Amino acid sequence: MFKKAIADLRAGKPILIFDFKDREGETDIVIPSQFVNNEIIRFFRKQGGGLICTTMKEETARILGLPFLDDLYRKSLDFGDRLADTTDMRYDRTSSFTVTINHRDTFTGIPDQDRSKTISEFTSFISQIGKSPSRDPRVEFSKRFRVPGHVILLIARDGYFSMRKGHTELSTYMVERAGLIPSATIVETLSDNGKSMSREEAMEFAASNNLNFIHGNDIVSEWLEDESNGIGGIRYNTPGAYTLSQGIKKVG
Amino acid sequence: MFKKAIADLRAGKPILIFDFKDREGETDIVIPSQFVNNEIIRFFRKQGGGLICTTMKEETARILGLPFLDDLYRKSLDFGDRLADTTDMRYDRTSSFTVTINHRDTFTGIPDQDRSKTISEFTSFISQIGKSPSRDPRVEFSKRFRVPGHVILLIARDGYFSMRKGHTELSTYMVERAGLIPSATIVETLSDNGKSMSREEAMEFAASNNLNFIHGNDIVSEWLEDESNGIGGIRYNTPGAYTLSQGIKKVG
Repeated sequence: MFKKAIADLRAGKPILIFDFKDREGETDIVIPSQFVNNEIIRFFRKQGGGLICTTMKEETARILGLPFLDDLYRKSLDFGDRLADTTDMRYDRTSSFTVTINHRDTFTGIPDQDRSKTISEFTSFISQIGKSPSRDPRVEFSKRFRVPGHVILLIARDGYFSMRKGHTELSTYMVERAGLIPSATIVETLSDNGKSMSREEAMEFAASNNLNFIHGNDIVSEWLEDESNGIGGIRYNTPGAYTLSQGIKKVG
Repeated sequence: MFKKAIADLRAGKPILIFDFKDREGETDIVIPSQFVNNEIIRFFRKQGGGLICTTMKEETARILGLPFLDDLYRKSLDFGDRLADTTDMRYDRTSSFTVTINHRDTFTGIPDQDRSKTISEFTSFISQIGKSPSRDPRVEFSKRFRVPGHVILLIARDGYFSMRKGHTELSTYMVERAGLIPSATIVETLSDNGKSMSREEAMEFAASNNLNFIHGNDIVSEWLEDESNGIGGIRYNTPGAYTLSQGIKKVG
């Protein structure tokens, strides 16, 4: 199933990822951001129903100077520590949210064409980081994108599942494992009754749309075996390493 | 048409608001936030297709210490002035976005029940501001809501259409004129072709769903006549008055 899912991602075909029974218990539709187009956005909003979000690795966020909103809000808002407090959050202690963006060459930012363009340009942009060392990526980024916007960006924590086991990490890891530009575009699947699709419903949805469904457990197992090959693995998560989330309590 | 729209809002029935031909040219579905329920969220995500957002007046945001993201990002991000620069924005110079929230008694925040609960509780919360003067509303807010979350909040600029003529202002003004808790929940309407619905399409959509459609021009006309009755009007927009958006260039 893992290999099939990787093959699908390489072919630009969406997959469904269920996280964990004891976490959100949600299934997201996932596609490598480099394959996003108008039809994908339409499919995501019609069939997914949640928030359409685009991920990046934490090292990309660091280069671009994009903070976790958790951190930004703690520092910047009145009573930010209280507002961003997550000790009562039932499935995690951190969120992946960072800023929202629009590509500057979009109009309102929300039509499928606009979101598709923003995501495609973002993916193309991050694939070029470091290739023109004379240019500051943060300045280049600000020339192409505006904040705030209509595409919600997420940051996959350094060290992947040693740090967090959310859809952000699961999807970004899979896309990176597929050898693609490490950014996934994802959306939560909601049932017609308004609840998150159950695992069973999501599996039916997958079957009826001819999509593959993979369980977070299977991804984490592969990642654990993958420790030594330099793609993922906890060895990236050395104690004391600088992370954007410094100062935030870690889970697991 | 204006009176009909006001009557609909009072009855808890959504209306459609088109902004202006020379602005976004978009139509949003609008409902007073106090009438949001699971079915409304489902209708908004299925039939709207854009971002589901909840508005408040700028005076509310000021009391809660919630900033415009424009301002926050300028101040807090590396190259924030460049990232938040809007001189190339084709229909406006400012956005309405502020933070995103989840009510603390939600699970993941995204199912219809969760978004509906967050919005209902938010509306109820703002209607109580000032009623327990011994309590700091910002502390009370942080006890009930967490940032970041899955409900996107927007701030309607002080002075309404003297400052900005977006759907945030149009919808919030209408709900306030209806004598309801001044918060609207809105979503952009997208056509099946992925573009924003044209005015004609939106009018057809309105007719087929038995909803009223109102043009931004008609709302602004009513607001202009309303100057003397203390609900809206430019007399609230006295030069030098403190606004959250101080320092940001104003349009129109």
